Amino acid sequence: MRIGYLGPEGTHSHEALRRVAGPDDVPVPHPTLQAAVLAVHEREVDRAFVPIENSLEGAVNPVLDALAFATNDLEIAGELLHPVHHHLIAGGPVALDAIRAVHSHPQASGQCARFLAATLPRAAIAAAASTAEAVRHVAGRPADAALGTRLAAELYGGTVLREAVEDDPSNETRFVWIVRAGEASPDAAAAPSPAARRKTALVFWGSGSRDPGWLVGCLSEFASRGVNLTRLESRPRRQALGEYMFFLDLEGGGEEPGVADAVAALRARADAVRVLGSYPAAGAPPG
Amino acid sequence: MRIGYLGPEGTHSHEALRRVAGPDDVPVPHPTLQAAVLAVHEREVDRAFVPIENSLEGAVNPVLDALAFATNDLEIAGELLHPVHHHLIAGGPVALDAIRAVHSHPQASGQCARFLAATLPRAAIAAAASTAEAVRHVAGRPADAALGTRLAAELYGGTVLREAVEDDPSNETRFVWIVRAGEASPDAAAAPSPAARRKTALVFWGSGSRDPGWLVGCLSEFASRGVNLTRLESRPRRQALGEYMFFLDLEGGGEEPGVADAVAALRARADAVRVLGSYPAAGAPPG
Repeated sequence: MRIGYLGPEGTHSHEALRRVAGPDDVPVPHPTLQAAVLAVHEREVDRAFVPIENSLEGAVNPVLDALAFATNDLEIAGELLHPVHHHLIAGGPVALDAIRAVHSHPQASGQCARFLAATLPRAAIAAAASTAEAVRHVAGRPADAALGTRLAAELYGGTVLREAVEDDPSNETRFVWIVRAGEASPDAAAAPSPAARRKTALVFWGSGSRDPGWLVGCLSEFASRGVNLTRLESRPRRQALGEYMFFLDLEGGGEEPGVADAVAALRARADAVRVLGSYPAAGAPPG
Repeated sequence: MRIGYLGPEGTHSHEALRRVAGPDDVPVPHPTLQAAVLAVHEREVDRAFVPIENSLEGAVNPVLDALAFATNDLEIAGELLHPVHHHLIAGGPVALDAIRAVHSHPQASGQCARFLAATLPRAAIAAAASTAEAVRHVAGRPADAALGTRLAAELYGGTVLREAVEDDPSNETRFVWIVRAGEASPDAAAAPSPAARRKTALVFWGSGSRDPGWLVGCLSEFASRGVNLTRLESRPRRQALGEYMFFLDLEGGGEEPGVADAVAALRARADAVRVLGSYPAAGAPPG
């Protein structure tokens, strides 16, 4: 199976994907998350494996927007929680005080800011397009280091100088499988046991959204039926400020009566409701 | 008055600030939005002028997070809606077919993707740290162009080849004034007439947020009093996936009975409620 992800090789996405891909799967790197999602729609890949939410940074907006705007034939078929660790990587076993510059994606540098200030106070912080690019860059440069994955160190010949230097050790990312609607094969998703509880993702919007009670009314269709919301994100409709769409994650499969009734009631209030998928909820990630 | 903003000189932030700054104001560029906000807390500047929401990209998360996490002595004192136009700028009056590379911040390049594909299909797209850096970079490079502001073209000696090449002409950003709490001077904010309606911004979170009806109950305190919500954003509490805080914008000043009563009722449901400010609502932006 061909699986799209955010490249280049050695990114956190690639590392998470290797946890769940089978021996016959072919990971296919894409330059952007939108490209990875659209590749499913265009049948260039069989599915995509993309981050949708991080515990520090919040929603991964390009994925939400691709699901809402770019196409309407895709759905979420599964999820995986993956811990995010940034390692300090150099081209070889150099001493920390020989490092003059630390390269990484700005988000990774920001997540290691306290470590960098305490341990490498004289090193310049340099921006790279991805953590994987940063690790590739430092190979053969003895005064440079990068923040990136262990996989990138293996792929590009780097040496891990210090492990897990992120300031917040609870940093984790939720990844989802994106498939063409109706083509989900549960075994290929990160499927827990068959008894696992299910979740449903949907997006809705409506012209009533400027009325005081509109959003509350929409959400109360779920609350009144005891359906738990695990997530609510608002995103612009890309028309004007103040026009939003709302992404909901619910506990329960779309076919369960409480969820199905609530979605039907929501359709009566909203201009548009799109169910983005029902799938088994992930358990807690391994350390 | 010293006013912090996201630099370097010539950014969209700088351009918007020049619309509202007075002759005695001193714009002070900062390398990040978080630094601009914290400079108010640290009394390095008197106030900051920062983007908080864009019609295409959504919430400006570093500003929301700085208001929620970094300090609790700041408040929002005013807002301004500013249209976002990207111009194609070169070091001189070169022909379009001589351009080999177009530099800009990736967000700007993305917002001009259709223009670039149609008009400059053979030019490489190069990433810069900001639109202003991109314009500064192309000065003296005859085969390079940048996407940036008219102000940057003036500051760095660029020539505007094509105006407003963004794909979506309705692109606009909402900026806010950040001041130390209790030090707002309405005349310095982008203040509409005194009769303008007011808005209130707040953030709240609570340990009940995993109960089905918790968020609905919180929001219904506003709906039941006829208080309109103009915006709802969820952001991670930076503790674990599934722990959120919610940013609300409301119509009405914090002292108005409906708003004050609703906030008091919200305090009974939430672990924490922080009013981030009440300020005059901006009108529609000029062209």
